[in-house]
Amino acid sequence: AWIFLPRSPSRSVSEISMAEQLAAALAELGQQFADGDFVLDARFEDCHSAIEISLTERLGDLGKKIHAGRSRNDQVLVASRLYLRAQLERINSLCASIATASLDRAQADALTPMPGYTHLQRAVVSSVGLWFAGLAEAFIDNASLARDTAAWLNANPLGTAAGYGVNLPLERALTTEKLNFDRMQVNPMYAQNSRGKFELQALTAAAQALLDCRRFAWDLSLYTTAEFDFVSMPDEYTTGSSIMPNKRNPDVVELMRGAYGVVQGAMAELQAGLSLPSGYHRDLQRTKGPMIRGLVIAVDTLELTDALVRDLTLNTEAMAAAIEPAMYATDVALEKVADGIPFREAYRQAMDNPDALASRSPAESLEARVSPGAAGNLQLDQLRARLDQL
Amino acid sequence: AWIFLPRSPSRSVSEISMAEQLAAALAELGQQFADGDFVLDARFEDCHSAIEISLTERLGDLGKKIHAGRSRNDQVLVASRLYLRAQLERINSLCASIATASLDRAQADALTPMPGYTHLQRAVVSSVGLWFAGLAEAFIDNASLARDTAAWLNANPLGTAAGYGVNLPLERALTTEKLNFDRMQVNPMYAQNSRGKFELQALTAAAQALLDCRRFAWDLSLYTTAEFDFVSMPDEYTTGSSIMPNKRNPDVVELMRGAYGVVQGAMAELQAGLSLPSGYHRDLQRTKGPMIRGLVIAVDTLELTDALVRDLTLNTEAMAAAIEPAMYATDVALEKVADGIPFREAYRQAMDNPDALASRSPAESLEARVSPGAAGNLQLDQLRARLDQL
Amino acid sequence: AWIFLPRSPSRSVSEISMAEQLAAALAELGQQFADGDFVLDARFEDCHSAIEISLTERLGDLGKKIHAGRSRNDQVLVASRLYLRAQLERINSLCASIATASLDRAQADALTPMPGYTHLQRAVVSSVGLWFAGLAEAFIDNASLARDTAAWLNANPLGTAAGYGVNLPLERALTTEKLNFDRMQVNPMYAQNSRGKFELQALTAAAQALLDCRRFAWDLSLYTTAEFDFVSMPDEYTTGSSIMPNKRNPDVVELMRGAYGVVQGAMAELQAGLSLPSGYHRDLQRTKGPMIRGLVIAVDTLELTDALVRDLTLNTEAMAAAIEPAMYATDVALEKVADGIPFREAYRQAMDNPDALASRSPAESLEARVSPGAAGNLQLDQLRARLDQL
Amino acid sequence: AWIFLPRSPSRSVSEISMAEQLAAALAELGQQFADGDFVLDARFEDCHSAIEISLTERLGDLGKKIHAGRSRNDQVLVASRLYLRAQLERINSLCASIATASLDRAQADALTPMPGYTHLQRAVVSSVGLWFAGLAEAFIDNASLARDTAAWLNANPLGTAAGYGVNLPLERALTTEKLNFDRMQVNPMYAQNSRGKFELQALTAAAQALLDCRRFAWDLSLYTTAEFDFVSMPDEYTTGSSIMPNKRNPDVVELMRGAYGVVQGAMAELQAGLSLPSGYHRDLQRTKGPMIRGLVIAVDTLELTDALVRDLTLNTEAMAAAIEPAMYATDVALEKVADGIPFREAYRQAMDNPDALASRSPAESLEARVSPGAAGNLQLDQLRARLDQL
Repeated sequence: AWIFLPRSPSRSVSEISMAEQLAAALAELGQQFADGDFVLDARFEDCHSAIEISLTERLGDLGKKIHAGRSRNDQVLVASRLYLRAQLERINSLCASIATASLDRAQADALTPMPGYTHLQRAVVSSVGLWFAGLAEAFIDNASLARDTAAWLNANPLGTAAGYGVNLPLERALTTEKLNFDRMQVNPMYAQNSRGKFELQALTAAAQALLDCRRFAWDLSLYTTAEFDFVSMPDEYTTGSSIMPNKRNPDVVELMRGAYGVVQGAMAELQAGLSLPSGYHRDLQRTKGPMIRGLVIAVDTLELTDALVRDLTLNTEAMAAAIEPAMYATDVALEKVADGIPFREAYRQAMDNPDALASRSPAESLEARVSPGAAGNLQLDQLRARLDQL
Repeated sequence: AWIFLPRSPSRSVSEISMAEQLAAALAELGQQFADGDFVLDARFEDCHSAIEISLTERLGDLGKKIHAGRSRNDQVLVASRLYLRAQLERINSLCASIATASLDRAQADALTPMPGYTHLQRAVVSSVGLWFAGLAEAFIDNASLARDTAAWLNANPLGTAAGYGVNLPLERALTTEKLNFDRMQVNPMYAQNSRGKFELQALTAAAQALLDCRRFAWDLSLYTTAEFDFVSMPDEYTTGSSIMPNKRNPDVVELMRGAYGVVQGAMAELQAGLSLPSGYHRDLQRTKGPMIRGLVIAVDTLELTDALVRDLTLNTEAMAAAIEPAMYATDVALEKVADGIPFREAYRQAMDNPDALASRSPAESLEARVSPGAAGNLQLDQLRARLDQL
Repeated sequence: AWIFLPRSPSRSVSEISMAEQLAAALAELGQQFADGDFVLDARFEDCHSAIEISLTERLGDLGKKIHAGRSRNDQVLVASRLYLRAQLERINSLCASIATASLDRAQADALTPMPGYTHLQRAVVSSVGLWFAGLAEAFIDNASLARDTAAWLNANPLGTAAGYGVNLPLERALTTEKLNFDRMQVNPMYAQNSRGKFELQALTAAAQALLDCRRFAWDLSLYTTAEFDFVSMPDEYTTGSSIMPNKRNPDVVELMRGAYGVVQGAMAELQAGLSLPSGYHRDLQRTKGPMIRGLVIAVDTLELTDALVRDLTLNTEAMAAAIEPAMYATDVALEKVADGIPFREAYRQAMDNPDALASRSPAESLEARVSPGAAGNLQLDQLRARLDQL
Repeated sequence: AWIFLPRSPSRSVSEISMAEQLAAALAELGQQFADGDFVLDARFEDCHSAIEISLTERLGDLGKKIHAGRSRNDQVLVASRLYLRAQLERINSLCASIATASLDRAQADALTPMPGYTHLQRAVVSSVGLWFAGLAEAFIDNASLARDTAAWLNANPLGTAAGYGVNLPLERALTTEKLNFDRMQVNPMYAQNSRGKFELQALTAAAQALLDCRRFAWDLSLYTTAEFDFVSMPDEYTTGSSIMPNKRNPDVVELMRGAYGVVQGAMAELQAGLSLPSGYHRDLQRTKGPMIRGLVIAVDTLELTDALVRDLTLNTEAMAAAIEPAMYATDVALEKVADGIPFREAYRQAMDNPDALASRSPAESLEARVSPGAAGNLQLDQLRARLDQL
């Protein structure tokens, strides 16, 4: 706790003693809070006031010193920044975990045939490996973004007071180090005015991951229909109906799909609140609700996705049954290209001879798909290498 | 152009000759386009079809080869990614330029007094230096974010075709290098499904810079009122009224303020369009409008901000006149703290003795404001050092 | 044109003559514009300045009188309000047309079986009639909303000048009548400050209709997959692929789906721009872009929907084939309820005896579905009666 | 409660007795809930299950009958629709109250001078009456919109079950009447698919009112600065600072300003969640959070606005002191117009003779501002007449 006190060339014995008393009282308070004995209620304006009042009850005048050189403004900034950083680290590690699980599934079913769609229309032969490797690469990007974002906003606002600093030589370099910030947020006005801005950027990183959860949820929502029937999921991921005895519904997939919208709403709420001149305004107090709402649902949804990637079952027969001869037409056209026929000619020839497609097999098609990243050349090692660097 | 052709262990003479013919024809086409002689009109589905048709008219069968191993999908991805990268680089450099100009102004008026506001109420003495240094730090963060974002999305989608790769050994590592991408976007499905996602992230970086433009515009909008009158701007930044002979209006400041909303709208449009299963869908074609709309206004607005930071005039007398004695109360409270009085006591004493404030001066107050980053200790060097690394 | 001139108890002969000259010149200008001979270019600040300059070139001093008692602010308000009203009327009539077509299709296939889904899982037997009647009721609500919204905003801002009125006795009641407004927008400040507000409400009405287009597009996007195959559409609604010879893609359905997002983006853009104090600000000039973008896409999309409802083909055999015995379980449970068994008991009995379901038919199930509005009791007359009142 | 039971030509004695038992048990349950003795906790899936279980505990088999012909889907729809209706009625009445208070203040200070601004620059003489009359007209529109919206969505979904009706002759016309709905929502699929849609429309009506609160809050935020100083507010509307002894901050005004963003965020969240095919999906369960969040803050903020309009104090001297001679230039130009000088000439003459303006007074200017709605002709009666019709 002594790090919040004004600097002095050599701290006196009494200063050190005061610091130790404060540290002890804070530790005690922390324990009370952990035990549920310290309750925040209407007596206190907020947790910062509550802590100050408690310290004053315990330590008298020493407690009254605690707010020296501080404003609730910079206290709130510090608390919310530590929260943003912790949540982004959690998002980073969940994304990496989803990517790992996806790579494993891609490897296990690298050449298992699956229809490839564009416009939801059957297009070409694809594979389970390609599907999961795509999910893996998405979550590698998402993990990387969460990490970059945490670094970008990991700047220390402590000691900026109400936006104008103070006439005390606060040891801001020291608090930067002790609180594991990468740098000091130098300017006190900017510290205030970055409120909402940094929250927005953290939500953006969370949202990008949820964007891929939404797409994956859409895939699963289609693939669990009776009509597609490509995927099954354990009973604990489904629910029944209050009126229809026959139903098992993939509710968790739909909640996964809906999570993005919650974060999008939280971002819109933040964006709307930031049309303001410089300096603190009470409008900024409203950044906490959407910040927490958005990050909590992001973490929950990523945990769910991480579990579901591991737990879902593939109905490979249904996938294979959905592959029809027309889906080899592109292969044929490009084989002709390799033989020297100009592509536009080859395209027309392939279209005009549907009968030539009937005898082909998914396995041949996938093995020949050798362009880097394609089903016959997934380059999982390259993805794994990026993942290892995160 | 030869980089788009299928790999072969050693290219034959005829392949090299074909590549040279294509390169020459493309160069010619590029010149025509630059000269305004190649017009995209309703004859063509899009620019990619137009190029293919033109090459075929010029080169016959060789032109018909150009689309081998490609889909419009990956062509559009490449084109839009190069665009995103270029615009982010422009945003990065404009933000750095704004930060440079702001640091210069902060240094020039480091201790020029200016009222500091919270809740738009006069709070404490502040300085022009503090105001501009805050702007500088904001735009250093914005420049850094634009650079990070450009790096994050600088991945090569070329060779992913319609989302499933092809049965040709495309030289994707080579195109990655030639087009200055940092890495290959490995997975073809993900390449498709990152459409909109990467655009959104680029808009986020642009939006963050505009968020600070909006705040700065709000400051200027207030400071150019007759009531504040802290800032003036050259006539070319103002307009008149069609009905009121007496008006000079700071229109550009208002356009600067409104730019954020255009990008916010573009982001909302993109977000809404991305609730889709895997694979290409025509919905994705609509990402181009908001992407371009958002980035163009961002670049325009940053250019305006860059100019305005340099061109505006400070009315330092009006600023000084707006400082009133009550604004020294916090200084007084903290002086008492330095003398050992507990802060809560000191706060009450300062409030109860308003008369003690009348004799103080802004200069004293600013010089004593020594907490790192505050007016008396702006630490411009530290900001300049971060700027130099960008 | 004389209605814009100041009132006088009895107009003099010369006033009438001036009015006639202005009316003639404006008519001529209108003709030139219709013929493409009057081009708005960089010479003019906007169309209002262009008209004034043209009148002055034609009529000398009389042209210079035209702006008396007016500001560009109220001119723009009038023009955009007339535009909003016209577009809402168009939306109203398109929604009514879609509802009419949907009712016709509901009647034609009132009892044609179709699976009913919840959570995209097969739930109970449903009918084509129920599906289209639901679409009809949605668009009746949408038509009604467009009409209410047009009425709500049909207030005359002309004569409010720059937001503070003028010292001339303008005949606002007369212009209200001549321009077919329902009422005068009384207060000049509010006239300014309703800018953006009324545009937003018009976009909301458009968006509600597009929300149902989006849902309908999702249905069609699923129903045109090979896996569902419930619906086909004429070739003119589909496109091919640049790489895959075998593709016919339902592009228009995807564009229909994506339209909502364009309007959502436009609304977000408007909402962001309206965080302002009273009085005109240049920010408000930016309301025109999103207003026009949103309403144009709404009208286009509704026209497409109107055509598609009429033109799509139902594959009734595929629909029938997708009905499976478990979908009768709810019927069975409720039959037991009619026999006096408590519902919770009946629900359990129905679930425990799946074998009892195999012999049932869709036709029986639909005919027995007699709760008002259900497949056996569609109450199309009631919907038609509401439609007729629009 | 009997209205939820299946119809029979003449109800038997035992049916009536059952209905009475259910009604009594529900009344008892309601009382327990009101007394805090009926707690919803983790034992129950939701309130609907809890009620059914409680009735079954009390009434045995009769309790198990309660869910006959119903699904949680339509129960939730009914509950949320009654909530929407009640909140819109509250919003309607609060808007009418704000309009009433504003009209009273407009009348009391009809000709009290106040500067009129455009672009936040001093423009022309205006009045307190004009400012408050503008607020009144805005809230008349808002009240009218809330009423129209309540009527638009006041349709009964009860009896639509899970979106496909049931094979029981439910008395939907009767429940429509008993629950005070204006009409039956006929189609069961549409009843499901209007979820979110109706919530959005209710939020739109709330948002429009908050849009005007936001603008009014911006006015107050500026007018309570030391620089403008046009308005004061009682101490209970302000708060202090934890660090600055000298501060009194207009926090409530800032919370009023920020409320719109909360509703905008809630709307964005809803909009994002509604990109779905027909039929119920679990995504729709997430509509409740933003619906309630948005409407609760709307009601709170309107209550605050209603109080503040009545309680704020005008500093008429400061307003008068802010009027400067150039603000008469438009008056002068239009006087010349009345004398027959073409407006463009008059405009130039007024601009070229600033000295002629010095002798004018605000009172003269306001009295001469006679265009309908302007300060000299506020037409409060016309506004009051519209208000009386709400």
